Amino acid sequence: MNLFIASDHAGFELKESLKALAPNLGITLTDLGTHSKESVDYPDYANALCKALIQAGAETHLGVLICGSGVGVSIAANRHPQIRAVLAETAEIAALGREHNHANVLCLGARFLDTPKAAVILKAFIEAKPDPGERHVRRVIKLKGTSS
Amino acid sequence: MNLFIASDHAGFELKESLKALAPNLGITLTDLGTHSKESVDYPDYANALCKALIQAGAETHLGVLICGSGVGVSIAANRHPQIRAVLAETAEIAALGREHNHANVLCLGARFLDTPKAAVILKAFIEAKPDPGERHVRRVIKLKGTSS
Repeated sequence: MNLFIASDHAGFELKESLKALAPNLGITLTDLGTHSKESVDYPDYANALCKALIQAGAETHLGVLICGSGVGVSIAANRHPQIRAVLAETAEIAALGREHNHANVLCLGARFLDTPKAAVILKAFIEAKPDPGERHVRRVIKLKGTSS
Repeated sequence: MNLFIASDHAGFELKESLKALAPNLGITLTDLGTHSKESVDYPDYANALCKALIQAGAETHLGVLICGSGVGVSIAANRHPQIRAVLAETAEIAALGREHNHANVLCLGARFLDTPKAAVILKAFIEAKPDPGERHVRRVIKLKGTSS
């Protein structure tokens, strides 16, 4: 399992901190930018990560996206029919998103999370497993279609 | 401004409570179901709300979607290019989503919110205004395109 990570400028510092912690969490991260605090547009980095994740295999690998609130990257990521992105402020929501909604991208808001809290949420996301229960699978299949 | 509301079975009770509070909040709600605690699939109700909101005018009116965690409805809603859905556990995130990301749908997790807290988040969402700053508008325009 590969873990891709990307952020905008507001998420840059938290991304760097999570990268530094990754070996302790037993994770290998692939960093898709941004690489400084210079202002960028969050949809560009969210789309780049989603494309890389889909190319690698979105049912096998995972992604993490960070912006100031986490909202912008979660909207951008969920535009992609093969991506299911969960915006999580707690480990519980991150795990639930992975279990019930088979989320393959975790979105974090750097403005509201310090590094230890973000690391706990990331660990919960990675360790949770998609629940194979029929009703969850049926609903996840319905998420593939767009209707407007 | 019309406010559309919909939920799955897990969000049914919170939806009914918010409907009862709506007159006190100065809000008129249009309820698109579900209408009982019988198990349903959250994408069906999220898609129905998004279609109604888009038909009414997604840049003028707003929506609220509720499921157990809020995650499922937020994924489903953001599949629609004209919808920008924010999953909010706090009033601050709801307002930021509306201001910076021009969110037009608020997603709530009934499992984690009592009615008073949900009402505070809903009020913050409705009262916040999209920030017309050029950088926010540029990024919101980029959210319209899907890339995979």
